[in-house]
Amino acid sequence: MAAADARAMRRAIALAARGLGSTSPNPVVGCVITDAAGTVVGEGWHQRAGGPHAEVHALRAAGEAARGATAYVTLEPCNHTGRTGPCAQALVEAGVTRVVYAVPDPNPQASGGADTLRAAGIKAEGPFLEAEAAAGNAAWLTSVRLGRPHVTWKYAATLDGRSAAEDGSSRWITGPESRADVHRLRAESDAVLVGGGTLRADDPHLAVRGVEGATQPLRVALDTRAAILPTARILDDAAPTLLVVAEDADTRHLPGADLLRLPLHDGRIAVHDLLARLHARGVRSVFLEGGPTLAGAFLEAGAVDRVIGYLAPALLGSGPAALADAGITNIARAVRLDITEAVRVGADLRITAVPVSEAVPTPTAPKEH
Amino acid sequence: MAAADARAMRRAIALAARGLGSTSPNPVVGCVITDAAGTVVGEGWHQRAGGPHAEVHALRAAGEAARGATAYVTLEPCNHTGRTGPCAQALVEAGVTRVVYAVPDPNPQASGGADTLRAAGIKAEGPFLEAEAAAGNAAWLTSVRLGRPHVTWKYAATLDGRSAAEDGSSRWITGPESRADVHRLRAESDAVLVGGGTLRADDPHLAVRGVEGATQPLRVALDTRAAILPTARILDDAAPTLLVVAEDADTRHLPGADLLRLPLHDGRIAVHDLLARLHARGVRSVFLEGGPTLAGAFLEAGAVDRVIGYLAPALLGSGPAALADAGITNIARAVRLDITEAVRVGADLRITAVPVSEAVPTPTAPKEH
Repeated sequence: MAAADARAMRRAIALAARGLGSTSPNPVVGCVITDAAGTVVGEGWHQRAGGPHAEVHALRAAGEAARGATAYVTLEPCNHTGRTGPCAQALVEAGVTRVVYAVPDPNPQASGGADTLRAAGIKAEGPFLEAEAAAGNAAWLTSVRLGRPHVTWKYAATLDGRSAAEDGSSRWITGPESRADVHRLRAESDAVLVGGGTLRADDPHLAVRGVEGATQPLRVALDTRAAILPTARILDDAAPTLLVVAEDADTRHLPGADLLRLPLHDGRIAVHDLLARLHARGVRSVFLEGGPTLAGAFLEAGAVDRVIGYLAPALLGSGPAALADAGITNIARAVRLDITEAVRVGADLRITAVPVSEAVPTPTAPKEH
Repeated sequence: MAAADARAMRRAIALAARGLGSTSPNPVVGCVITDAAGTVVGEGWHQRAGGPHAEVHALRAAGEAARGATAYVTLEPCNHTGRTGPCAQALVEAGVTRVVYAVPDPNPQASGGADTLRAAGIKAEGPFLEAEAAAGNAAWLTSVRLGRPHVTWKYAATLDGRSAAEDGSSRWITGPESRADVHRLRAESDAVLVGGGTLRADDPHLAVRGVEGATQPLRVALDTRAAILPTARILDDAAPTLLVVAEDADTRHLPGADLLRLPLHDGRIAVHDLLARLHARGVRSVFLEGGPTLAGAFLEAGAVDRVIGYLAPALLGSGPAALADAGITNIARAVRLDITEAVRVGADLRITAVPVSEAVPTPTAPKEH
């Protein structure tokens, strides 16, 4: 591949990211079409489920210029007819002569696009820049692989790991730039999730504010006994809301509420039950915002795919921790992560980390302190 | 000042840093001498208290080339005769015609060097690059300003702020690169300090290992009841050790131990009592290594000048916090810091922060979550 190929594909990856939060249950996809001279003649990205795929947007933009052109697509073009026609066929009909794709389609229902292209005499090349493109599509790829939504656990804490002061006050631990950043991440997610403790303590709103053109995520609150008041802020009409309650919860005070009834295990809703039901509703990415016990349950269930911590340059020395009850008692059982990014956000530090997939042996070393 | 002046002064600042940990109660100082063409003809740094000052080292290296030269010194040359002669006089006698200094000498006992130089017809210019040079001399400058040692609190914790697992195991939270980094910081400190809890739980050694040419710091352990066993690792001969005990502690089982007896207040040693006594012994920098309660006491006393946290990419969800009992109950009273650096050290993240000196008003903002 030439440098021009990488440039075009990276542009396609950037375009794909614009769809984050609005395409589920579909992936985000970007497409760039260039003519024989390497000039971009069409661009597109998948904007929402049910709408045209990225390739169709780009082909429309290119028009006749697509004839003899190269198409760069972040995901192998689909081969099946869903609500929209198969993209592989559209590329053939438009006269594209070469297709470069980044990530092979992992969805058994949709795979085979490259073969179809080749059968039609088109040069289909890939995977190309697969890791970069996969990172941008992590939520959807995880959901295909695991059959459950991708989960990002977000927390905000002081340098000493406190998410609130001893008296429960937490406004504000982090700065306005971090809070704006959280709204951006909510907008990129299909669902935002909080537990009952947070619901009662903070009366959170959880809708996206200050992000232009944002698709509101589904607000999901775990509230086993349906103790929520009809006046709770999360029940306003700023975004859709789903209340997850026990099978036998009395919800007569919540007429019209969207309810998901789940069985309790030891008094708690099982993480994988919840995720399976959210997946069935088309949710591919969950942004888990609290509290510490719910985060601990997700971690214990192996259902945290990404951790984003906002660390405020402050110390408290007391108050609740950001994470609790993950079922870990010995250091050898700690959940080990790789820090993939650490950047300043205003005066705060945002740390992104992903679990280390393979077991790392504990090094033996002489006693030292 | 010209670019050549900045180059020479930055070199002097780098030379000064080589003395960290071995010059107390003196500051670290670096000196670079350049001839009329800007060529470096002599370099030196203060290596240990009682030894020659930086200027003398550099003048010796320059020899006759010092005549008509410019001397760059990170601290205003001293004007008093201590164990060594006054540096201002040495510069005059060597025939230096221009002296550039970074930080004015804040020590009333030693100030006036620039005036002496000017009286002798030498062009004395400064302050120049004061902030950069002061950062390298932070411990000594703090000790002059406050009459107590500069205190760095170091901690190691998981991303969720735990310094050990629930069962007390903590080996290893951070990686080998972080542990080596801690040895480097110990070597730059005059004293390393731990509390009684850490002493009993970890039997720490606290000496510097793996740092070539390191001066061993004074190992200081708070042990009010003198409960330490004579076989404790901290009592070996790898480095000097000071045990801080209550006035009436029974220390008959510790013959030959270096003891500092202090009065108790509510059963505890007062932080400022301890720091004053260490200062009187020539300690200008303290590296506070634990545990959480001692760190909390220092923080509550306003006696933490720098925080260095090693954050391991791991999650525990239970176990002791890195910081406890700092006397803060509300978020508005949190100790606010500025993060001055955040860098990877192996797989870990090292965060350096300093307290925000001025009171920051709490912003008023609409309720949000």
